[in-house]
Amino acid sequence: MTRKAAIIGGGVIGGGWAARFLLNGWNVSVFDPDPEAARKIGEVMANARASLPALSDIPMLEEGVLSFADTITEAVEGADYIQESVSERLELKHRVFAQIQQSCPDTLIGSSTSGFKPSELQQNAANPAMIFVAHPFNPVYLLPLAEVVPSPASDPAAIERAKEILREIGMFPLHVRKEIDAHIADRFLEAVWREALWLVKDGIATTEEIDEAIRMGFGLRWGQMGLFETYRVAGGEAGMKHFMAQFGPCLQWPWTKLTDVPEFTDELVDLIAGQSDAQSGHHTIRELERIRDGNLVGFLRSLKDRNWGAGKVLREHDARRRVAFTDGSREIAAAPLAMAQMQVLPSWIDYNGHMTESRYLFAASETSDAFLRFIGADMDYVASGFSYYTAESHIMHKGEAKLGDRLTGTLQVLSADAKRMHIFIAIQKNGVDVATIEQMLLHVDMTAGRAVAAPEAILDRLMPVAAAHAGVARPEAAGRFTGERK
Amino acid sequence: MTRKAAIIGGGVIGGGWAARFLLNGWNVSVFDPDPEAARKIGEVMANARASLPALSDIPMLEEGVLSFADTITEAVEGADYIQESVSERLELKHRVFAQIQQSCPDTLIGSSTSGFKPSELQQNAANPAMIFVAHPFNPVYLLPLAEVVPSPASDPAAIERAKEILREIGMFPLHVRKEIDAHIADRFLEAVWREALWLVKDGIATTEEIDEAIRMGFGLRWGQMGLFETYRVAGGEAGMKHFMAQFGPCLQWPWTKLTDVPEFTDELVDLIAGQSDAQSGHHTIRELERIRDGNLVGFLRSLKDRNWGAGKVLREHDARRRVAFTDGSREIAAAPLAMAQMQVLPSWIDYNGHMTESRYLFAASETSDAFLRFIGADMDYVASGFSYYTAESHIMHKGEAKLGDRLTGTLQVLSADAKRMHIFIAIQKNGVDVATIEQMLLHVDMTAGRAVAAPEAILDRLMPVAAAHAGVARPEAAGRFTGERK
Repeated sequence: MTRKAAIIGGGVIGGGWAARFLLNGWNVSVFDPDPEAARKIGEVMANARASLPALSDIPMLEEGVLSFADTITEAVEGADYIQESVSERLELKHRVFAQIQQSCPDTLIGSSTSGFKPSELQQNAANPAMIFVAHPFNPVYLLPLAEVVPSPASDPAAIERAKEILREIGMFPLHVRKEIDAHIADRFLEAVWREALWLVKDGIATTEEIDEAIRMGFGLRWGQMGLFETYRVAGGEAGMKHFMAQFGPCLQWPWTKLTDVPEFTDELVDLIAGQSDAQSGHHTIRELERIRDGNLVGFLRSLKDRNWGAGKVLREHDARRRVAFTDGSREIAAAPLAMAQMQVLPSWIDYNGHMTESRYLFAASETSDAFLRFIGADMDYVASGFSYYTAESHIMHKGEAKLGDRLTGTLQVLSADAKRMHIFIAIQKNGVDVATIEQMLLHVDMTAGRAVAAPEAILDRLMPVAAAHAGVARPEAAGRFTGERK
Repeated sequence: MTRKAAIIGGGVIGGGWAARFLLNGWNVSVFDPDPEAARKIGEVMANARASLPALSDIPMLEEGVLSFADTITEAVEGADYIQESVSERLELKHRVFAQIQQSCPDTLIGSSTSGFKPSELQQNAANPAMIFVAHPFNPVYLLPLAEVVPSPASDPAAIERAKEILREIGMFPLHVRKEIDAHIADRFLEAVWREALWLVKDGIATTEEIDEAIRMGFGLRWGQMGLFETYRVAGGEAGMKHFMAQFGPCLQWPWTKLTDVPEFTDELVDLIAGQSDAQSGHHTIRELERIRDGNLVGFLRSLKDRNWGAGKVLREHDARRRVAFTDGSREIAAAPLAMAQMQVLPSWIDYNGHMTESRYLFAASETSDAFLRFIGADMDYVASGFSYYTAESHIMHKGEAKLGDRLTGTLQVLSADAKRMHIFIAIQKNGVDVATIEQMLLHVDMTAGRAVAAPEAILDRLMPVAAAHAGVARPEAAGRFTGERK
């Protein structure tokens, strides 16, 4: 059954949570007294729909249903998880928790607070054990981090359940073992922010120069390794101790404004806002959001290719969802077999806005892999040391597939013998070919590294298909060479 | 004529400078009394050769000649640029500058210092005007940032010359207008480092947890926007002032350890080194360097696709070097063009442990895309409504590529006219084909949806290549149909 998340507070952060739950198949009920809440969440959803699916190599689950509640009580009714993202005022958060726990005392309540400790949030609560910090990072629908902070009064089993739910929506729950003001990440952000304010105030650098100093250098490092691993590498062969021996003493130097916070005068605010306008004012906030999301998708996909850092989280999220997409058994007819159903994902799109060339061959592989599983040449068979290898392929592009198109991969066996399998694949949209792929596959003994006859168990399944397909007309495109005139 | 850079100090940073200059076609002379210097620089060069070319869409210039000098005087003789990267001891740096300026008083001297101000470096120098800070970030061969800091005694024309040289080797010189201890970026790094030490010392988080708190969240943001632009977006429609009104008061909260630096005891060093071993000790430093470099290449290429941040620097660097090919100063050889350098990434591997089929076509696309950019059919051209579309492809699989293999994509133009381009791509490992891809491309008016003649600007670049390649032997695999017997 579809699960329900209640989102209390529908600003940028609450909207981001709503988007993450909805796009991962949860129903979401939002409570926010702001009359603009529906519009604002709609805008976050539009950004999320345009970016989050690009991280997936699995078709997305059907989006959940979004609703808006008139009261907190209505929003949390029947919820499996509740996330609070109201303003950073402790007494307001206390009132919200009290109201939630009047009707749902045993439901998980994560708080998006940047600064409060869970023990502060739990003060005077009906059931403190269910309240904890789940601190996300904007944009919530793309960045995996959620700092999960319990207090000693939290129920450890509840915290484990919460972490599992966060993983299910593609996040990386970082369990912060000891509560502390601002958890972990925001302590760093505050330290940098304070130092940056001094640099601007003292006229050392503008907001733009500071941003360049970050994104042209260490910002790139920190997106894939953090602080310590980066320095471990910098220490070189001599390692971490050597690095610390070098860098440690510098801490005594008078580099940073240790003891002081710049006064937040109107003058300083105007200075910063003015510099920020000069730096970024030629883009609207909406444009900047889309640029940011596109960049983050690029970083995340790149890490996914390398199975590293946040990319590992994405792969695990795919693996968890792949279970829902197992194929069933199929019948043999004297017609090409419809072996694979696919959807064009954002990551399949090139800069022309069309499905990128190599994805047609990818779609063909999905189709032939399904056929190989069908005749028994599945993963277990490969593990036994045998497999079909593709020797050559000829691709004809006949149409264009675009984002979201549903594609079917059909397969016709042109001929087959013990060692060879000559197949013809059509990738179709609404029954019309967008590409055809003719392939020659060889049955290979991977240990010996040469083609050998397939065993009877395989041939007993392959040859009846070949026989059935012998009566099917040979496609016109078969046997063509590249550049041949029609 | 090939220019010469002198590198004084050949550690991780000096080696990174050497690699950047060499791979951008400069000759480099290194002075470092360490008997291990040649080996250490060799290892940096191996990393640089394995990663930097992957950022280029232009064939790399011929690598410069690396030599090792016995004295500073020998190293700097005839140098067009000198970079000092010795240990952070002011009196040592003063001695180095004095020795350099005995023979080369008028040559640019950049210092890699993290902390010293240029006015400190210039003290007692024969010619202070030539000494300035050029502070890079590790790995120097990949990260574009160089903080360029003059003092009032610096020669402004010399600083402009230095910035131009840094741009020529693909860097982003950030002109820091007022000198200050630690320039800009390292002030942030120190603030975060200090806070991180407290978190470890107080047992709040391990080095691994701290790294996850960075790389799963704000680290990804900072690689593409900096601090202020990120917050401008976070402020949403209400903008930067709204954000500051929200976040400003938090500065008064007791979040960070403002007044204190943890004592650098053996106990703290052991605690951190031990946690770092537990976190990253299963990789050697060399492995971590390669992982880091691969990730950075992924981020940088992703930004390059989007023409944003550090990716803009890469595009400008390409544009600068493209001139060398298009102004006729470099002849097109009568040989296939090596257009793309790639590495088989984890996501390219199938369940057989081999490079997955569609990735061969992907590698071919990388190769043909690089060629299209080379002849001017780049992203801007596509944005103008025209593009080359692939009409058909024939792939021959001739070998196997596995995880980590380095691949080169070469491209030969078989024939070309105003509308058509018939090309032959070889994907090679160690000079041996693992796959060949023959393709027919059509020049298309995307609005009209039909093939049209390419403009002269494109043909002027394409046809000389086609003419040069007319003399190259036609590959045996060209013109084959699928299943054709040899």
